[in-house]
Amino acid sequence: MKDSVHISELAFTRYNELVKDGETVVMLPVGALEQHGPHMSMNPDVLIPTAISERVAKKAGALVAPAITYGYKSQQQSGGGNHLPGTTSLDGMTVTATIRDVIKEFARHGARKIVLMNGHFENSMFIVEGIDLALRELRWDGIKNIRVSIISYWDFVLEDTIEKIYPDGFTGWDIEHGGVLETSIMLALYPQFVDMSKVVDHDPAEFPPYDSFPVNPELTPPSGTLSSAKKATAEKGNLLIEVCVNGITKALDDMF
Amino acid sequence: MKDSVHISELAFTRYNELVKDGETVVMLPVGALEQHGPHMSMNPDVLIPTAISERVAKKAGALVAPAITYGYKSQQQSGGGNHLPGTTSLDGMTVTATIRDVIKEFARHGARKIVLMNGHFENSMFIVEGIDLALRELRWDGIKNIRVSIISYWDFVLEDTIEKIYPDGFTGWDIEHGGVLETSIMLALYPQFVDMSKVVDHDPAEFPPYDSFPVNPELTPPSGTLSSAKKATAEKGNLLIEVCVNGITKALDDMF
Amino acid sequence: MKDSVHISELAFTRYNELVKDGETVVMLPVGALEQHGPHMSMNPDVLIPTAISERVAKKAGALVAPAITYGYKSQQQSGGGNHLPGTTSLDGMTVTATIRDVIKEFARHGARKIVLMNGHFENSMFIVEGIDLALRELRWDGIKNIRVSIISYWDFVLEDTIEKIYPDGFTGWDIEHGGVLETSIMLALYPQFVDMSKVVDHDPAEFPPYDSFPVNPELTPPSGTLSSAKKATAEKGNLLIEVCVNGITKALDDMF
Amino acid sequence: MKDSVHISELAFTRYNELVKDGETVVMLPVGALEQHGPHMSMNPDVLIPTAISERVAKKAGALVAPAITYGYKSQQQSGGGNHLPGTTSLDGMTVTATIRDVIKEFARHGARKIVLMNGHFENSMFIVEGIDLALRELRWDGIKNIRVSIISYWDFVLEDTIEKIYPDGFTGWDIEHGGVLETSIMLALYPQFVDMSKVVDHDPAEFPPYDSFPVNPELTPPSGTLSSAKKATAEKGNLLIEVCVNGITKALDDMF
Amino acid sequence: MKDSVHISELAFTRYNELVKDGETVVMLPVGALEQHGPHMSMNPDVLIPTAISERVAKKAGALVAPAITYGYKSQQQSGGGNHLPGTTSLDGMTVTATIRDVIKEFARHGARKIVLMNGHFENSMFIVEGIDLALRELRWDGIKNIRVSIISYWDFVLEDTIEKIYPDGFTGWDIEHGGVLETSIMLALYPQFVDMSKVVDHDPAEFPPYDSFPVNPELTPPSGTLSSAKKATAEKGNLLIEVCVNGITKALDDMF
Amino acid sequence: MKDSVHISELAFTRYNELVKDGETVVMLPVGALEQHGPHMSMNPDVLIPTAISERVAKKAGALVAPAITYGYKSQQQSGGGNHLPGTTSLDGMTVTATIRDVIKEFARHGARKIVLMNGHFENSMFIVEGIDLALRELRWDGIKNIRVSIISYWDFVLEDTIEKIYPDGFTGWDIEHGGVLETSIMLALYPQFVDMSKVVDHDPAEFPPYDSFPVNPELTPPSGTLSSAKKATAEKGNLLIEVCVNGITKALDDMF
Repeated sequence: MKDSVHISELAFTRYNELVKDGETVVMLPVGALEQHGPHMSMNPDVLIPTAISERVAKKAGALVAPAITYGYKSQQQSGGGNHLPGTTSLDGMTVTATIRDVIKEFARHGARKIVLMNGHFENSMFIVEGIDLALRELRWDGIKNIRVSIISYWDFVLEDTIEKIYPDGFTGWDIEHGGVLETSIMLALYPQFVDMSKVVDHDPAEFPPYDSFPVNPELTPPSGTLSSAKKATAEKGNLLIEVCVNGITKALDDMF
Repeated sequence: MKDSVHISELAFTRYNELVKDGETVVMLPVGALEQHGPHMSMNPDVLIPTAISERVAKKAGALVAPAITYGYKSQQQSGGGNHLPGTTSLDGMTVTATIRDVIKEFARHGARKIVLMNGHFENSMFIVEGIDLALRELRWDGIKNIRVSIISYWDFVLEDTIEKIYPDGFTGWDIEHGGVLETSIMLALYPQFVDMSKVVDHDPAEFPPYDSFPVNPELTPPSGTLSSAKKATAEKGNLLIEVCVNGITKALDDMF
Repeated sequence: MKDSVHISELAFTRYNELVKDGETVVMLPVGALEQHGPHMSMNPDVLIPTAISERVAKKAGALVAPAITYGYKSQQQSGGGNHLPGTTSLDGMTVTATIRDVIKEFARHGARKIVLMNGHFENSMFIVEGIDLALRELRWDGIKNIRVSIISYWDFVLEDTIEKIYPDGFTGWDIEHGGVLETSIMLALYPQFVDMSKVVDHDPAEFPPYDSFPVNPELTPPSGTLSSAKKATAEKGNLLIEVCVNGITKALDDMF
Repeated sequence: MKDSVHISELAFTRYNELVKDGETVVMLPVGALEQHGPHMSMNPDVLIPTAISERVAKKAGALVAPAITYGYKSQQQSGGGNHLPGTTSLDGMTVTATIRDVIKEFARHGARKIVLMNGHFENSMFIVEGIDLALRELRWDGIKNIRVSIISYWDFVLEDTIEKIYPDGFTGWDIEHGGVLETSIMLALYPQFVDMSKVVDHDPAEFPPYDSFPVNPELTPPSGTLSSAKKATAEKGNLLIEVCVNGITKALDDMF
Repeated sequence: MKDSVHISELAFTRYNELVKDGETVVMLPVGALEQHGPHMSMNPDVLIPTAISERVAKKAGALVAPAITYGYKSQQQSGGGNHLPGTTSLDGMTVTATIRDVIKEFARHGARKIVLMNGHFENSMFIVEGIDLALRELRWDGIKNIRVSIISYWDFVLEDTIEKIYPDGFTGWDIEHGGVLETSIMLALYPQFVDMSKVVDHDPAEFPPYDSFPVNPELTPPSGTLSSAKKATAEKGNLLIEVCVNGITKALDDMF
Repeated sequence: MKDSVHISELAFTRYNELVKDGETVVMLPVGALEQHGPHMSMNPDVLIPTAISERVAKKAGALVAPAITYGYKSQQQSGGGNHLPGTTSLDGMTVTATIRDVIKEFARHGARKIVLMNGHFENSMFIVEGIDLALRELRWDGIKNIRVSIISYWDFVLEDTIEKIYPDGFTGWDIEHGGVLETSIMLALYPQFVDMSKVVDHDPAEFPPYDSFPVNPELTPPSGTLSSAKKATAEKGNLLIEVCVNGITKALDDMF
């Protein structure tokens, strides 16, 4: 049995050696099962943060926990909306409770440096609440020397990279859903899950400055993507991964 | 007893006439009790969305429900953090349950057009979840012809207004906490709750591209504000209110 | 910015000075949005406990927190029933969670003397449960030197006052809903929210010695009030306020 | 196997015949395990409503379900307080969920007339909430022709009986805890659970017009009772039972 | 008032003497209201664990708490299924919350040795979760020297007894529902609740190696029993009780 | 993009075609992150049900959803106990809520035939509750033509296979944790995650006929396994997989 950065691939005895003194960082990818357009599989929100975590872990001597595979409800202005087929979401309290429980368990094992690597925009606040509830209960157990961070990997894409990736101008991460960012990274990592011939080349989705429920399905482009992935390339994907991995690896140093 | 746009100021018989056929829009301000710096009271997140709702309601023939007075936990990068004194927050599920329950009640009264007017950045996703849970239960009750919108009033400040308000450049709504936007509006509406002599004139707060918990208090400026309110004026406040009220009034037309 | 007994009107820095050592009493009005007959607005359960808290706070050097604006479901024998339009209520667990969360936050700020000032009969037990859950969690945080009281202001109306207010005999607080007590106090405090010409002068509501659900709407007088407000006067209101304010101010001394 | 009014003593086939068409009333005693003074066992809140339900059921052709054996937290002014040994209580939400679940099950069996017979003062509002939640969910299942009542048996003790039981004056049901009412009924029903030689003959407990938490134990008489049971007799108990049984039997007729 | 092993039959003062130092074992029967065939009442899951607890308590100097009278949903392969009339079940979280709350209360009284005596197969995991949640909260209260065990009484029927009871072969506890085990014990304890003339003598129920929902009612024998009770006798019942009582009494010694 | 039995690897448009008419079976593996001895990785409870689902899906034309990667708390007598490092578990309600939410989403997509493929013994009852809650809510949405099954794959290992796998006698699935069954299957599927040289060859674990909490760690063998994996072989693993896959494929036919 080879050593691995993936906790799930270790015997518990080896994991115990690594984690018990609290020095090793544990990274937990939090994803979703969500439509990402007709040209891409529904797993980018799991695969991308897992891949980035893996690369960071190798550089930083960290560990990667199994990804949370379902996430919070897709919102129309950031993921097309939760009315679409394929998108498979949890209630907010379910996401929060999962995060809370898993953090507490890692802390029981000895971990004191935990990073939640988010791959699904809509998860953020429910993860934050899960962290808060976990820290509250850990405090009641006398565990106060713990630090838990939440990272959305796209926040590590720096200005100059954005200019390279989007030479015609960048319209914001929210409407990047199924667009150049995610598609490029998937092309770099898992080309078998992308079919560029099926990309629908549409203008960026436009939304009013508010959200209405039930959503008006007509506001979401029929493709389910919010901007066109046409200019996605594996090369851009590799650049994005590199920037994120380097940035996050460095952030881990600052963080703990 | 005079007529009023405030539901709480109406006799139930009058309210019933207005709401029973579902045509009248009901606006619900959702706020927070949160520190906004040493120069301002802790009520802007309640008073501002209430005031805007009131003005919109008068123009649009809508009604305003009593504000939700406590909100979700302040986040460091948007409100200074929930470790600060004065900031008084609810668990996520509590916010969600409150929103869910109140929407269902307005629907029972007959309302079919409901607008949640958010005044506290951190509330957004827990309001969204509350709307989703309410619509789910209403659907089980056979009520499907209802529409609920969520508005964060600052999303109606248009580009050209931003240029007027921030002639030296705009750094984003998130670090506006206790800054020019909120202080200007409060100066316009409730000058008695602002003391410009106590504004701490500091550089915009800078944060790493991730959040850590428990928060490192040193990352929040000692003032609790995330940018300086020094250039706030009542004039800017009036402009901001006008833009928001006009934009939202128009949006109500599009929405329903 | 003037000093104020209202927490929401203070800068957090001033609030912090007042509350951090635990000596200052924090009063939290807990109300409801509830029909109170065709002659009165729907806000008495919020406005009355807030006004009484304010007056007590001024005399006792206490602070008043923003009122909880929605309460537990109106019961037929004490509020006409939750089937009536206008009445806008929360599930029991929502009330309890709100109380729990807010108390814990005041305790985090340093408050050790907290008074919940209830204005809505049906809230009582859900407030009690909220207090119990808050104290339990605070205990887990090592905070044991805290005292939380719940007051229903009408319990401070003494026998001799009752005789003055109800010279023809008193039939109990429960059927006082929208009757002489509340209407008189509102006449004293907010005459603009009362229209005595719309009072329905009916006999006290009579109910069987049990409650049935769903309620039989015919048992509630069509006015929504459970006794006639005809004999309400501002003078009686002022007397009632005086008795309550004095009694509660004195009680605060005994309590802490 | 003899026929029985107790559901638990019937084979399900017999129960099914009785309940499936919805005509038979199902009575559910809701009690508590609570201290009732040094002279009495801790089961009166279960035994008394069960015995009354049984007698009513025999007269009215109703059925009695197994009692809920644990109840909501004892309050100081009505049960001595939940700090006392022996008193064994549930969180409010636990009581509510139990009531909700059980009502829904009886409705599934066909029952449409359900009476909750409360034996523990503090249970009332949590039972009410349980009923409301059950009816809400049953409504979603299309079951709307159901009626659920809640009875606190002492509310059927009429004025003239009170005069006979308390010739020296009646001080209210709330401080009757472990006093003449309950002790007399237990003497009539289960004399083996009463030891009159251990009654502590004290003045009625006196409390301030508010509740404080954590409770000040000194406000509860050391006996745990709130008034003296010294004048309790089996004869009074029989009278009380008769009045309650007759009143409730008649009420069942009016109710359904 | 005689001494008793039943907590409910003791005055709180006597209970306090017995339990305050933590030495006395508290046994809590956890049952259900569930159909057990046309030949038997619906209370075996409450009466049997209560009776066994009582006998063990007398031998071991333990105490017996009032039984939890409703349990988790009957499963088709172990109880016939929750679609049958009479079976009256709780949601899993309701069972868990009840167990959690009651254990915490016994611990507050001083008990440190608690045994949950389960009489209903389907309760097991929800009891386990209730124990875990109670121990977690007690730990936060600094109570760590407590031990809570869960016993399903049938696990104490030894191999040689099984051979005596089932001379033709034993098919497993799961399909024993309403069969020889429970019927024999009820014949020994409460013959008035068994009518052997109504036993349906059918082959053991056969199920596929999975569960489907909603259940296919045809898989459950029309009798509701999963195996025939025809060979049940009071003699076998007495033997079973003896084996269980002796085994559990001895286990209590090992346990604490 | 190739077609796949894994939902996550499909574009949503392709998934929609397959699932919208309700004919295609959706299989959901439910696992855990749990220690399985020093000779094996911690992922068998996820990998095995996923692999079996995949093989069944290919034969039966079904789909496989992303596995639930964390499960209910390990119990000492079936998984060594939840005190061990590495084992990372959820509260019961978290498991239940996840299952509930995900089933409802598949039903929204059109799925009417759903199989939960359990890989972790302790999950079973919390999955059952999740199914029940999902079906309840779907019923409220008018969806009644749905069937959800739960399979624990080891229940498909037939008697004659057991004899081949355990020629020296079979001691029950519960103490198989980390033993011959799981290790053989992992050797067949993922030999890289097994190191037979690290197998601890111990006697089967012996437990008393009850569970105590907190667990006595000494009852669990130091290896964390409950029986020896020494006789595990890839050949046995292949046989087990074949038997399970064939049995479950056939069961799918019977089920729907």
